[in-house]
Amino acid sequence: MPQDEIRLNRGLREIYFDRTETTFIDGSEGVLEYRGYSIHDLAGASNFEETSYLLLHGELPTQSQLDAFNEDLRSQRELPEQIFPIIETIKDSHPMDVLRTAVSALSSFDPDADAAWDDVDATFRKGMRMTSQVPTIVAAHYNIRRGKDPISPNWELNHAANFLYMLDGEVPSDDAAQLMDKDLILHADHGSNASAFTARVVAGTKADAYSAITAAIGALSGPSHGGAAENVMQMAREIGSPDNAETYVRDLLRRRIPVMGFGHRVYKAEDPRARHLKEGVRRLSEEKGEPEWYQILTAVQDAMSPYARRGVHVNVDFFAGVIYYLNGIPQDLFVPIFAIGRVPGWIIQVVEQYRRNILIRPLLKYTGQREQGYTPIADRG
Amino acid sequence: MPQDEIRLNRGLREIYFDRTETTFIDGSEGVLEYRGYSIHDLAGASNFEETSYLLLHGELPTQSQLDAFNEDLRSQRELPEQIFPIIETIKDSHPMDVLRTAVSALSSFDPDADAAWDDVDATFRKGMRMTSQVPTIVAAHYNIRRGKDPISPNWELNHAANFLYMLDGEVPSDDAAQLMDKDLILHADHGSNASAFTARVVAGTKADAYSAITAAIGALSGPSHGGAAENVMQMAREIGSPDNAETYVRDLLRRRIPVMGFGHRVYKAEDPRARHLKEGVRRLSEEKGEPEWYQILTAVQDAMSPYARRGVHVNVDFFAGVIYYLNGIPQDLFVPIFAIGRVPGWIIQVVEQYRRNILIRPLLKYTGQREQGYTPIADRG
Repeated sequence: MPQDEIRLNRGLREIYFDRTETTFIDGSEGVLEYRGYSIHDLAGASNFEETSYLLLHGELPTQSQLDAFNEDLRSQRELPEQIFPIIETIKDSHPMDVLRTAVSALSSFDPDADAAWDDVDATFRKGMRMTSQVPTIVAAHYNIRRGKDPISPNWELNHAANFLYMLDGEVPSDDAAQLMDKDLILHADHGSNASAFTARVVAGTKADAYSAITAAIGALSGPSHGGAAENVMQMAREIGSPDNAETYVRDLLRRRIPVMGFGHRVYKAEDPRARHLKEGVRRLSEEKGEPEWYQILTAVQDAMSPYARRGVHVNVDFFAGVIYYLNGIPQDLFVPIFAIGRVPGWIIQVVEQYRRNILIRPLLKYTGQREQGYTPIADRG
Repeated sequence: MPQDEIRLNRGLREIYFDRTETTFIDGSEGVLEYRGYSIHDLAGASNFEETSYLLLHGELPTQSQLDAFNEDLRSQRELPEQIFPIIETIKDSHPMDVLRTAVSALSSFDPDADAAWDDVDATFRKGMRMTSQVPTIVAAHYNIRRGKDPISPNWELNHAANFLYMLDGEVPSDDAAQLMDKDLILHADHGSNASAFTARVVAGTKADAYSAITAAIGALSGPSHGGAAENVMQMAREIGSPDNAETYVRDLLRRRIPVMGFGHRVYKAEDPRARHLKEGVRRLSEEKGEPEWYQILTAVQDAMSPYARRGVHVNVDFFAGVIYYLNGIPQDLFVPIFAIGRVPGWIIQVVEQYRRNILIRPLLKYTGQREQGYTPIADRG
């Protein structure tokens, strides 16, 4: 095709690259369903383990299926001992860099390391191990970098509560554990976002699931993808008091700086995940005796309401950061927590890619110079 | 958009996702240019360092620019000492898995680790370090896994010769070094292949260059992308003698099994890189007293010639594997050598992505069930 007739699709914004049977999103209506189940039902009545089962297997489990799934997840939480010195070696790096390196290294100890790319059962087993072990890596690094021993997983606790437990060795309150559980449900999958798409591109070459998930962690580490929760907390601190919110927001908008936690590439209506965390922020900030955080965020939301008509709504990241903060979690663990929730979504998308595999290889339009004459170096000048 | 009107672009085959000023490919005419310079001129007269400078900086260097570039590359070949125990820990894994983990870990020791994503100078510096150190990782792992000490880089040698030197401590013959140099030139960039595209998707989230290159290594590890050179050598061994080639090829075609090293997603004419390696295989296989390898490959090429009319031509991987084999390089290092050559291409594409950044996020068409009713677990069965 002549280069000047080429239609560019920057960002691939309107391009459908494949089918999926996992997650339905209607951005203009604000609808999100996992396997056809509304995110509102799941956030209200399910838990992370059941939701992960649903994503991975396509239907809600019976009690005995869920029990087996839970046992599988809980029994694989311990890291191979060789991973700890690796974390120790790179402990001063950002937790996402540590997670990326540690997950990449985990591939070396996986019993299914030599399985063929199209052995889907092996990919599911690898996926269960990664789902189990990603929280252990994040918590181990958190403790190693502050000079403490990693805390062993607690078999009694579910995925969300065990993660909080591995941070400081305290069994969390039911409220805190349930809010973290809900947060993980809300982050478990979200269509072909940049990290899931990265995982699919890597899987499309028939590379194994560890290559795909390592790559996805790299994509999630970028501030345009995973970074917003960190930034909302930063903004809330800068605002300091609900009374300052309107001035702060107006000043940002005048300077054409986007307000953190608003707008989404897909949603032009309200992000259906946001409301579930908003209520949690209210409860938790009162429980912790710091109601100002809830007040600041709602004041920002009010100040932004004139822009809702233009499709700029609050997104899931807006409330998530404050929840982590109120749980005593440092800012640089916010994106790793997003990763903890997202592993099942990445895995099922890698499986979908393997099942109907194709190399994902779009094109670039060349706009540079053509047919340059090569001059020997002595003649250049 | 109603889901049933959606046009699917599986594999994004005909979709242009951005502009580039780096590499021009005309698949129907078999043209490949880096920055407008024909691959034939570069393979014939340039070297890997000059070609890397050209890719990264857009023009051929003067002698003093090339000297500075060389010094920069050579002076950064040593790995941070902390990387060796990591390689030791995972030494029994495939070299691509080791490379992926080691490059990910390198990010922790990079002096520019905290640079902003849009600090392009910092990305270039990171890119130079990765270009320098990727061969050192591959060679160190090769020696560590066979119980030997890693061999320190040799300051006197260029990129290609130093890599061969670090494998066994012998300064390679000029012929062997030049052929490896040419191989690296031919692999240095190739448009939006799956690994470069992966790197761009990751960079599109504003993640840093180490996340992007780690992800690209993962993509390259897949047999649909980097794996063909390994498989051609396997095929040549199975054929065993030139007389068997025609029967072997006919049998594969009858069983509808693709012949390794033939066909390319982009080239419908001859892959312009192939001819440069073909001549090298002839010379090297005679020099090594094993002319049968050249004869087997040309016999396969002859047997495939009826399919050339349908656009199935020999590709760059067809001859590369035999070159590595004749240099005594084990089969599982073939894809890592591809990576050694490709680092500059990945880096410049990451820089292009940063310079005109956009989140790369296509869409998936949902074909699963909708609006499922959530049933409490006690009521399922």
